Amino acid sequence: MTQKIVTAAFVIIGDEILSGRTQDENLNFLARGLSEIGINLKEVRIVLDEESKIIEAVNAVRKKYNYVFTSGGIGPTHDDITTEAIAKAFEDFLVKNEEAADLLYQHYKTNDLTAAHMKMAYIPSKAKLIKSKLLSPSGFVIENVFVLAGIPRIFQSIFESIKTEIIGGQKIQSQEIKISLPETAIAKTFADLQKKYPQVAMGSYPFNGGTSLVFRATNHTTLELSVNEMIEFLQKNKSDSILAVSNSSTK
Amino acid sequence: MTQKIVTAAFVIIGDEILSGRTQDENLNFLARGLSEIGINLKEVRIVLDEESKIIEAVNAVRKKYNYVFTSGGIGPTHDDITTEAIAKAFEDFLVKNEEAADLLYQHYKTNDLTAAHMKMAYIPSKAKLIKSKLLSPSGFVIENVFVLAGIPRIFQSIFESIKTEIIGGQKIQSQEIKISLPETAIAKTFADLQKKYPQVAMGSYPFNGGTSLVFRATNHTTLELSVNEMIEFLQKNKSDSILAVSNSSTK
Repeated sequence: MTQKIVTAAFVIIGDEILSGRTQDENLNFLARGLSEIGINLKEVRIVLDEESKIIEAVNAVRKKYNYVFTSGGIGPTHDDITTEAIAKAFEDFLVKNEEAADLLYQHYKTNDLTAAHMKMAYIPSKAKLIKSKLLSPSGFVIENVFVLAGIPRIFQSIFESIKTEIIGGQKIQSQEIKISLPETAIAKTFADLQKKYPQVAMGSYPFNGGTSLVFRATNHTTLELSVNEMIEFLQKNKSDSILAVSNSSTK
Repeated sequence: MTQKIVTAAFVIIGDEILSGRTQDENLNFLARGLSEIGINLKEVRIVLDEESKIIEAVNAVRKKYNYVFTSGGIGPTHDDITTEAIAKAFEDFLVKNEEAADLLYQHYKTNDLTAAHMKMAYIPSKAKLIKSKLLSPSGFVIENVFVLAGIPRIFQSIFESIKTEIIGGQKIQSQEIKISLPETAIAKTFADLQKKYPQVAMGSYPFNGGTSLVFRATNHTTLELSVNEMIEFLQKNKSDSILAVSNSSTK
């Protein structure tokens, strides 16, 4: 039973991230969430609230990866242009989604909605409204592209709602060895080990007082073999350098 | 005296950001730092530690923007492949930089450096080593591309060192009006104001309990006019809705 590798890209839409006004909080959340369901986040692009930039970015990634997620630009104001841009990227047009309109009437508890409110009920004709626990329209999916609101609380809530329905692939297992040595002390051994186990992605990340060696692979046995080989080398040649060994399936 | 608009892109290189293991800390710092010197960050790409991905991203942005900054992948281990990839992107090759080698001897306080140490002394032949307060080689510049280390402490220290030497352009001024209303309440007025002042970029950002209206422009007078018009509208039609008005040249 071999499962396939499933990939994704994330397009973050928003002047406020690029100007430094706002610190993105969704990337790390999405990266971890996708790992949990066996989807590898392969690329991220952050673009301005400009139609041509959004279209270019979405079209560049939607054919390269299994899934694309976008955040931002689907609110009621004039600077929210993502929905329109996504429709154009798919050579589609916007239609009023009655389910979304109903949600808006319920959310705002009035029958007297303005054009600004109603803007949020329009989605591309080929799109499907995303159902979430939030009682307001907050995203849609068109082919393999999930278009979500950018506000972290909302983005994260919607992603949690849809996570179980997205079909992932092989989960990446990861193990980490923390050592009290600088990267240079293990560079050669680590490189040799990487050559010996090309199926395991090995990365080293210095921190204050040592280095984290991270091993990532879909095959658990190969992962264990490579990690144990590194541990043996350290125990034999760099005694007392191991600070910690830990597992994780989502790193 | 008109100064020109100066633009930049940021390419973040690192499996650890895309896997969710590490939260990026450099983007927001860079965005704010560039704003201070009159450079507009227009696009960000985050890519894996894979040669073809790095080359593709850097080549895609270096002709589109005045400057490109990269972070990550210039350390001593096998997974640090940025320097080599950048050389290939410029059809260049690596040479030993004697100044970088001297810094390494000083930094490690030994004449007995390994190949892993020495890897960090090699930079593309057309590149110049970046001088920083840190006594180790931690970046280089090739044409308009600044290649920096990814560790936040180092990235940020190097950027602070070189910031004063980078030629920026017109600074973007920004003003913010915080109101106690939802976005929908001001959407129409805000859109009309945007049409009246196309030189001012206007964005609205909801927060818990209200909305931030952000106005950004290089021309201070036009900026003030548009902000004052919004304030007048709010005072006349939505009394007591203004929570705060603030200035900033770096948002």
